[in-house]
Amino acid sequence: MPASYAYLGPEGTFTEVALRTLPEAATRELIPYVSVQSALDAVRGGEAEAAFVPIENSVEGGITTTLDELVAGAPLMIYREVLLSITFALLVRPGTTLSDIKTVSAHPAAQPQVRNWLKRNLPDAHWESAASNADAARLVQEGQYDAAFAGEFAAARYGLTALETGIHDAENAQTRFVLVGRPARPAAPTGADKTSVVLWQRDDHPGGLRDLLGEFATRGINLMLLQSRPTGAGIGNYCFCIDAEGHISDRRVAEALMGLKRICLQARFLGSYPRADVGQEGVRPLMKGTSDEEFTSAADWVARCQDGRF
Amino acid sequence: MPASYAYLGPEGTFTEVALRTLPEAATRELIPYVSVQSALDAVRGGEAEAAFVPIENSVEGGITTTLDELVAGAPLMIYREVLLSITFALLVRPGTTLSDIKTVSAHPAAQPQVRNWLKRNLPDAHWESAASNADAARLVQEGQYDAAFAGEFAAARYGLTALETGIHDAENAQTRFVLVGRPARPAAPTGADKTSVVLWQRDDHPGGLRDLLGEFATRGINLMLLQSRPTGAGIGNYCFCIDAEGHISDRRVAEALMGLKRICLQARFLGSYPRADVGQEGVRPLMKGTSDEEFTSAADWVARCQDGRF
Amino acid sequence: MPASYAYLGPEGTFTEVALRTLPEAATRELIPYVSVQSALDAVRGGEAEAAFVPIENSVEGGITTTLDELVAGAPLMIYREVLLSITFALLVRPGTTLSDIKTVSAHPAAQPQVRNWLKRNLPDAHWESAASNADAARLVQEGQYDAAFAGEFAAARYGLTALETGIHDAENAQTRFVLVGRPARPAAPTGADKTSVVLWQRDDHPGGLRDLLGEFATRGINLMLLQSRPTGAGIGNYCFCIDAEGHISDRRVAEALMGLKRICLQARFLGSYPRADVGQEGVRPLMKGTSDEEFTSAADWVARCQDGRF
Amino acid sequence: MPASYAYLGPEGTFTEVALRTLPEAATRELIPYVSVQSALDAVRGGEAEAAFVPIENSVEGGITTTLDELVAGAPLMIYREVLLSITFALLVRPGTTLSDIKTVSAHPAAQPQVRNWLKRNLPDAHWESAASNADAARLVQEGQYDAAFAGEFAAARYGLTALETGIHDAENAQTRFVLVGRPARPAAPTGADKTSVVLWQRDDHPGGLRDLLGEFATRGINLMLLQSRPTGAGIGNYCFCIDAEGHISDRRVAEALMGLKRICLQARFLGSYPRADVGQEGVRPLMKGTSDEEFTSAADWVARCQDGRF
Repeated sequence: MPASYAYLGPEGTFTEVALRTLPEAATRELIPYVSVQSALDAVRGGEAEAAFVPIENSVEGGITTTLDELVAGAPLMIYREVLLSITFALLVRPGTTLSDIKTVSAHPAAQPQVRNWLKRNLPDAHWESAASNADAARLVQEGQYDAAFAGEFAAARYGLTALETGIHDAENAQTRFVLVGRPARPAAPTGADKTSVVLWQRDDHPGGLRDLLGEFATRGINLMLLQSRPTGAGIGNYCFCIDAEGHISDRRVAEALMGLKRICLQARFLGSYPRADVGQEGVRPLMKGTSDEEFTSAADWVARCQDGRF
Repeated sequence: MPASYAYLGPEGTFTEVALRTLPEAATRELIPYVSVQSALDAVRGGEAEAAFVPIENSVEGGITTTLDELVAGAPLMIYREVLLSITFALLVRPGTTLSDIKTVSAHPAAQPQVRNWLKRNLPDAHWESAASNADAARLVQEGQYDAAFAGEFAAARYGLTALETGIHDAENAQTRFVLVGRPARPAAPTGADKTSVVLWQRDDHPGGLRDLLGEFATRGINLMLLQSRPTGAGIGNYCFCIDAEGHISDRRVAEALMGLKRICLQARFLGSYPRADVGQEGVRPLMKGTSDEEFTSAADWVARCQDGRF
Repeated sequence: MPASYAYLGPEGTFTEVALRTLPEAATRELIPYVSVQSALDAVRGGEAEAAFVPIENSVEGGITTTLDELVAGAPLMIYREVLLSITFALLVRPGTTLSDIKTVSAHPAAQPQVRNWLKRNLPDAHWESAASNADAARLVQEGQYDAAFAGEFAAARYGLTALETGIHDAENAQTRFVLVGRPARPAAPTGADKTSVVLWQRDDHPGGLRDLLGEFATRGINLMLLQSRPTGAGIGNYCFCIDAEGHISDRRVAEALMGLKRICLQARFLGSYPRADVGQEGVRPLMKGTSDEEFTSAADWVARCQDGRF
Repeated sequence: MPASYAYLGPEGTFTEVALRTLPEAATRELIPYVSVQSALDAVRGGEAEAAFVPIENSVEGGITTTLDELVAGAPLMIYREVLLSITFALLVRPGTTLSDIKTVSAHPAAQPQVRNWLKRNLPDAHWESAASNADAARLVQEGQYDAAFAGEFAAARYGLTALETGIHDAENAQTRFVLVGRPARPAAPTGADKTSVVLWQRDDHPGGLRDLLGEFATRGINLMLLQSRPTGAGIGNYCFCIDAEGHISDRRVAEALMGLKRICLQARFLGSYPRADVGQEGVRPLMKGTSDEEFTSAADWVARCQDGRF
């Protein structure tokens, strides 16, 4: 298998920065791809060992291109996630001052994050969308625009200067990235894991989705994401991308997935992997009756009842 | 093990009639006991192979003596059940006519079943409670009372005549009896079985009992009996005797019992055994997603996900 | 309306003692009746203002005669409840010693409470059932039996002496009594009330009872009693007597009852009345979102939405 | 109030076509706006009576710009919805043949719908994104590109010819549009309505979302859309845009909204309006116990219980 990771390029974007926070990235060749789809296809086709792509951000929500690929494309699995706080720097050619700036550029996804800053500081600047923030920086370098919003790390690469850093309209602006590979055995549980799954309901009736979520709730499993995606079968036909706390090797998660498999039309497992969002306070304590020990002990009791030994 | 069945005596009661409907009763010595407790203790002490006792009737509800023994005494298991329609005959000494009857006798449990008949036909007769209906018949034979309400089958034994038969205030009056033995492997499933269990809640909070019943409901398991019994820990402290459709070797039932074991303070398995109430229409069709095949297939899918093969 | 209370007699029983703890009993004539049914019929027929009868005890569970009358007889309502700790005294004629006692008597319901004491102290005494504990005391007075188990208060009435007091096998042995009248407006809420209701399910299907209990659970209403009683339509046909925390004038209780009325085949309201079991710790705090204020505020919001004002 | 409707422009797009299917559009001035936000701001600012914008399509799912405006902007309400089947025509200048086409253009949202058609028919054509399909058509008219994917209706406006019509990769490709106005009393129920609401959970715990959906499920209300949107408070913080069957003046819907208001941190009503998706088979039959009559009758029963009259 090639020792390379595909990622959503170009170079010098937040995606690359996030990818480089993974220790294993240091030992792989990192290859930028022009789209999420092409990066994932590189994995499917065996050109890359894994692909690193954004999947969710705190301003726009789920990244639909990534979700739709995981939902409907040839099966892949998530092995790692990275959370990156997103703040922008205003990059200019050396010598440019704020009052010199007539045009600013960035990827359209940056716009909601810098809109208020622009209103306050550069109300008259003209916005020009670019294919990526890195591309915007390049165009500033080439003199086409006066300033670019990009990660501060991009300044060095394009010979630019950061006039201002830490620009972000929303507090806690973060993007979540995932490392995606071909299906294989998930990494062992770490004690702070999440499990991703896609579910298609069997039919549409009052309480259908409630019952589906009940498979998690009755086993004390908290949900971290519920994102509906159209199935393509017409308006109102959705499947659900769900991230749940816990690892498929946890008994409560395994039994919940079994329950979902039974009641759903279809279920697709997207992986169990370490959570990137666990801080000092650690993970939520388990609900009474949902630990592996309690599951094992209950299974043992039922086995003894089946044998008439108790 | 002694080839004898204990039963709630005396001879010549509905209990004996019900017991004799079991084919296996023909090959055992049938020994009457004076109380449910003594019959069950005969099993616990090894004097009898099994005991046959009433557990529920359609007029009085659960037979609390039997339930409390199964709930709190040394563990026993139910292996068979019998349903018997209860109608009474009015037994008199030969030659007695309706207008001769001044006193009638029966076990107090018979009273709700014959009360309306008495009002219409013998409004002035004096009621005398007896220890059993058979005992009432004996006392009529001995001349102490004029008439007894008992099963028609008791007439011959006591040299009496049935002045009237088929007496029953409530339509569908039935009593359910169970054959109880020491814990052993339950009989194999027949496709129309029930499972009995006693459950103690962990604590008392809004939704506690609802969640407990949810372990059955989410797996499509219908309940046939829910009888609360005091735990002895004071007013308002109850455990629940539950009969559910299905056999502990059914995957849905086994998983429900596991769930209950995990969330309950305590659970006691009382057996899985063939249902006596299944008529021509057969058993309720399984809810989608709850068959053994669907459980097995879902477990297999989860195992494959755990291995990354799908 | 006659200023009298009917109660389950005879005089000198626990029922009378419990009744006399009610302040309003001091201003009524208290009339003993021979049965629960006759006491309740006295209310129905207008001979008594209310009837005072046992409804639940911590050893035997629900008193089925009382429950069945409330469930199936002409409608009545509960207005008060009383909890009485039940301990027995061993009453003898003055001069009798323990070694003189060959026969003991009491109502059969006393037996489970004194059985262990008898085994330890009078293993050879012969048990004779009496119609009531007071009757047993009378029969001791008359010399028919040597000793009676009854409330200590009965000693004086029958000229007997208590050889021993405080006899009770089960700790926390209590009986709950209710004061029952013809339907009328319930007493105002006290902040620590309970509501009694009888529910008949529309049909029998997996989850039916779970959904019924869900009407309480989703509104944060704790259950204090769930007692199934046969409907008379054959084995397995039950209605449910439920005591729930709260008063029908509490918004959460009123809405839960509405929900039950809609989903049940039939519902019978048995009253809202002050709880007798609330100690120093007071009542359970309300679940978030279930106070009257929150109900009113939510109703107000919906009304404003319906008007397009928000 | 000005007799004008704002809509997402430019002219000659699917949005305008959908808007013109509303009878009331014939009597209003229809004014195109450059963005969803500006169209909605025109309503908020009083320049337009209502705005017509896309909210959901069967390929991309919820239109996040529209949802986020309804979720977080100054309150607006939905009054009508329109469903439009989306198929594309390939528009060229008269005389152009398929083999002449080197460049094709359309709005990026058209791409997933025409991708397969392009692979089969114009594998070598170069894709150029345009600001709208109408804009692409204009650029073809001006000679900048060879062909545009747009609605067939755009041909006449731009002097173009449709080389092919009915192009759509996904069967049942539809877009849902809504007519949005300032808050006012919703239109009267038609018998086939939907209600839109946004819900913010109080906190994040196992079962939280399940319980929220339970408010609909227990009242037999089917969900038509569940779309999570980030709250801006960081990754994993979502609110839920929900479309439910029924009208806020239906008792079951009003009570469900009340329940949600009580258990949610926040709730925003987005309107009750006629469903556009009801075909010949009509609406789903109501679940037993959820009709207005049953609600009214249950409320009446509770009121009578509160008065002691029953």
